[in-house]
Amino acid sequence: MNPSNRLRGVFSPVITPRADDPRQAAAMLVRHCRWLLEQDVGLAVFGTNSEANSLSVAERMHLLDALAEAGVPGPRMMPGTGCCALEDSVELTRHAVAHGVGGVLMLPPFFYKGVSDDGLFASYAEVIERVADPRLRIYLYHIPHVTQVPISLALIERLLHAYPGVIAGIKDSSGDWANTSAMLERFQPRGFDVFAGSETFFLATMRAGGAGCITATGNVNPGPIARLYRTWQAADADAQQAALDALRATFMQFPMIPALKAAVAHFSGDSGYVAVRAPLVRLNAQQNAALIAALQAREFSMPGL
Amino acid sequence: MNPSNRLRGVFSPVITPRADDPRQAAAMLVRHCRWLLEQDVGLAVFGTNSEANSLSVAERMHLLDALAEAGVPGPRMMPGTGCCALEDSVELTRHAVAHGVGGVLMLPPFFYKGVSDDGLFASYAEVIERVADPRLRIYLYHIPHVTQVPISLALIERLLHAYPGVIAGIKDSSGDWANTSAMLERFQPRGFDVFAGSETFFLATMRAGGAGCITATGNVNPGPIARLYRTWQAADADAQQAALDALRATFMQFPMIPALKAAVAHFSGDSGYVAVRAPLVRLNAQQNAALIAALQAREFSMPGL
Repeated sequence: MNPSNRLRGVFSPVITPRADDPRQAAAMLVRHCRWLLEQDVGLAVFGTNSEANSLSVAERMHLLDALAEAGVPGPRMMPGTGCCALEDSVELTRHAVAHGVGGVLMLPPFFYKGVSDDGLFASYAEVIERVADPRLRIYLYHIPHVTQVPISLALIERLLHAYPGVIAGIKDSSGDWANTSAMLERFQPRGFDVFAGSETFFLATMRAGGAGCITATGNVNPGPIARLYRTWQAADADAQQAALDALRATFMQFPMIPALKAAVAHFSGDSGYVAVRAPLVRLNAQQNAALIAALQAREFSMPGL
Repeated sequence: MNPSNRLRGVFSPVITPRADDPRQAAAMLVRHCRWLLEQDVGLAVFGTNSEANSLSVAERMHLLDALAEAGVPGPRMMPGTGCCALEDSVELTRHAVAHGVGGVLMLPPFFYKGVSDDGLFASYAEVIERVADPRLRIYLYHIPHVTQVPISLALIERLLHAYPGVIAGIKDSSGDWANTSAMLERFQPRGFDVFAGSETFFLATMRAGGAGCITATGNVNPGPIARLYRTWQAADADAQQAALDALRATFMQFPMIPALKAAVAHFSGDSGYVAVRAPLVRLNAQQNAALIAALQAREFSMPGL
């Protein structure tokens, strides 16, 4: 039930550089993506930590085109394509599939709250029917503290039944192990790949048969996270997990997306990476200094960046 | 401080018809807008009850073009233009201003939660600076139970100070009279027009010096709501308010947007109006029958539709 061409392992919701010149922003994105691929981390471009919903549809398509033109392999990408407007989700999904991506990570429409499972089922069904491409693989994106629109187990059951093969898995960013565990038990044996939504439950997810993790800190700590994926059955796996947790805790002392961008800017030597899009705000000088000091105290580095 | 060309009175977040043929959907929207204007209700097209965020940027611009081509006067319109991506908000706002609208109703970017006032200030500032048009009038849209991104009094203070004349008012859909009242006291005397976010606090808002209301039920009950605006100082104003509340309560027994569309479909004789966009779901047959029966029991009608 688990086809060999399915996405597995560690993915990063890649930070999206911002620059006045779109070509420069694209070049900075390509550079960061190449570094992640060198560490064996796949590209969940246009995720939450990518500020994807702060980008227009045209901006997202331009950046994906730029990645493809730079030779980034489609099968190593899992772009986010879920928008409030299904028209936009359809356009982005068609475009991503045409680039041969390994799958798309799809938020539910997230403007209205308290919507029914019938309405969410109809949303995903409409995108699937309109894209109408046998190559389409959808990873559901469950991140209720942001969307306020949860993807229930009952909804997954309905979608899997209606669209087997197309509904390929989930990123569970609920932070609720009971939920992740339930999905691993009920759906993973049926070829529905469960990805931990951060490294917090990464080892637990692997031990329960999951497919990997998709994590913000993959942007800055890809090597060690990818190593745990390769060696999760090794004797030092718990120690590796503890080290990942400690680094994550350092970043969690700051607003995550600006902190990731500040770290990439510092260790790459390109200060342009710090720019964010409103309503996010970059770290102030004091926060930036505190972050870098905390990382240096841990002897943290980003080798090869 | 209250220029005479400012928007005042009753506005309706106009339902947006859905049809396979975009020209048909536009014609149905034009028809409904003309009926609302005949009842002296202005057009807050592309609001929450318009399923605006379920429409692409291109769809919204096409529909606004169609309204203008049909002769709907720009000064009677207050289109919603706030999106998650500021690029989209800028494009929609420029387009609306070019059509000579009376103002735009602008959601804050609503994907990220827990964002700072600094970030929200930067969001509105970026749109204002990029649109850079002296005709721009922004009505802030405070609807925290949907966006989960509240617009604080402190943020309004900063925006009013930085962009006097451009920051023109607010739609307060918090349902919290203490909040509406605070805005009426602090900001209305400075030319910042406070609109009640539904008819629930309409009379209270008028008595406290407010500018009007923008309400979902304006789609179905425009005449009586507009009458209260004209006669809020009359002896029967409380009785009028009570009648508006009772009709609203009938609609609130159902999901609001599908119920509004079902009522328009029934009373216009055009069943096409019932169509909604996922994740919303149209009323089922039982709900539809119950709604129409409840309306008929109230001897409700939509004269002239």
